[in-house]
Amino acid sequence: MQGKQTSAAAHATDVLRQRVVDGVYAPGARFPSATAISEEFGFDRGTAARILAQLRESGFIITKPGSGSHVRTFEPILRVFPNRLSTWRDGQAIQDADTGKRARVVEVNVGERPASEKVAASLGLAPGDPVLCRSRRFAVEDRPVQLADSFYLPEMVRATPIVYTDTGPGGVYARLAEIGHAPVCFAEHLRVRMPLPTEKAALDLPGGTPVIAIVRTAFDAEDRCVEVTEMILDSSVYELEYRADL
Amino acid sequence: MQGKQTSAAAHATDVLRQRVVDGVYAPGARFPSATAISEEFGFDRGTAARILAQLRESGFIITKPGSGSHVRTFEPILRVFPNRLSTWRDGQAIQDADTGKRARVVEVNVGERPASEKVAASLGLAPGDPVLCRSRRFAVEDRPVQLADSFYLPEMVRATPIVYTDTGPGGVYARLAEIGHAPVCFAEHLRVRMPLPTEKAALDLPGGTPVIAIVRTAFDAEDRCVEVTEMILDSSVYELEYRADL
Repeated sequence: MQGKQTSAAAHATDVLRQRVVDGVYAPGARFPSATAISEEFGFDRGTAARILAQLRESGFIITKPGSGSHVRTFEPILRVFPNRLSTWRDGQAIQDADTGKRARVVEVNVGERPASEKVAASLGLAPGDPVLCRSRRFAVEDRPVQLADSFYLPEMVRATPIVYTDTGPGGVYARLAEIGHAPVCFAEHLRVRMPLPTEKAALDLPGGTPVIAIVRTAFDAEDRCVEVTEMILDSSVYELEYRADL
Repeated sequence: MQGKQTSAAAHATDVLRQRVVDGVYAPGARFPSATAISEEFGFDRGTAARILAQLRESGFIITKPGSGSHVRTFEPILRVFPNRLSTWRDGQAIQDADTGKRARVVEVNVGERPASEKVAASLGLAPGDPVLCRSRRFAVEDRPVQLADSFYLPEMVRATPIVYTDTGPGGVYARLAEIGHAPVCFAEHLRVRMPLPTEKAALDLPGGTPVIAIVRTAFDAEDRCVEVTEMILDSSVYELEYRADL
């Protein structure tokens, strides 16, 4: 019986999340109370309260004492290419160009990994050769929005702060510039699909939310590939813009 | 009973389509026969045959006499920005740059429409002002892949072949160039989401397939907006690539 209640609660959570995604409950609008949820889905109030807590933790609603829960207003993140890729020259992180002054948290893991076939091909290595990987999860205003793994040639970056968690002002691109490999040419390759279970969990995606898989390759002035980045974006929060003069 | 059978058949069709999308049945692999389908889902063979016919019409499988049905192999369409936007100078259509020599069919409707708020803002008009609209549906190798509506200032294009179904070699951009408005600056704005019911029907999308909504604005050398195009792409067939030198 406990299992059945839990599964029904998970279903109700999905239904409520989907209503937020579909705009049935508009951004900023009042969200159903625990009482209303328990009535609609036939739960006891404890279960309804746990559903609300789950929706709060996932960033879908905010709850203020005395005024109940409201649908979180989350302004989309506008990401403009290629403009964002030169902000390192001003000592900024690329993501600063996207999110402005909004609170941003980055979890970073740095380490060596065997290169995948694709990463190896881009960096001019053999599959399985070691590459330096900077693996990150970005959250904006507490909401996970993007996963990103960047790969580098170990011999190129070994003696730089690129191997540290904090790469300093202007980030990796500023450090690459200091060793004569400033990235000056970029290609982003996009595919769109439904998330894999691991991606769905890492980005805490509600049902029916596709992801954008972007692979960016960066080249220096000698046309050498200096970075490959594989990104997974929550498509519901990102607006992408690409500009070009011909 | 007829209704129930029909609804069960629609469900089975969705299940089988989803298996193709998920790669359970790989491209080129043998597809279950009418006998196998009737056994798995408990239909009579006539219903199973109708399901196969439906999957064939939707471009998911191909059937050759004597060798049964196979999952259609559909190579993704690679769309490279901004390179594709200068092919008109060689007298080509933009889409020729994407699909190469693959069979392509375009349904075109041309007419005046009241401008939406967004289109009006881009073209410097008031909402509801008349704009010339070229509405197209693209199919590649018989598979619908994209819907596109392009909007123009009527007074700019009225005396050109842009108002005709066939705009001639190099298409609209070549015609805009002839009247002194060659497009030289472009911005593409992307959002990703699940399709609306009308989009799902027009592109014959299986369940679980997101769309890419692209709005492209094109500007001439005087920075005047000469075209707004609203596109809806079947995300399962397109690979987008964006390039830039900084």
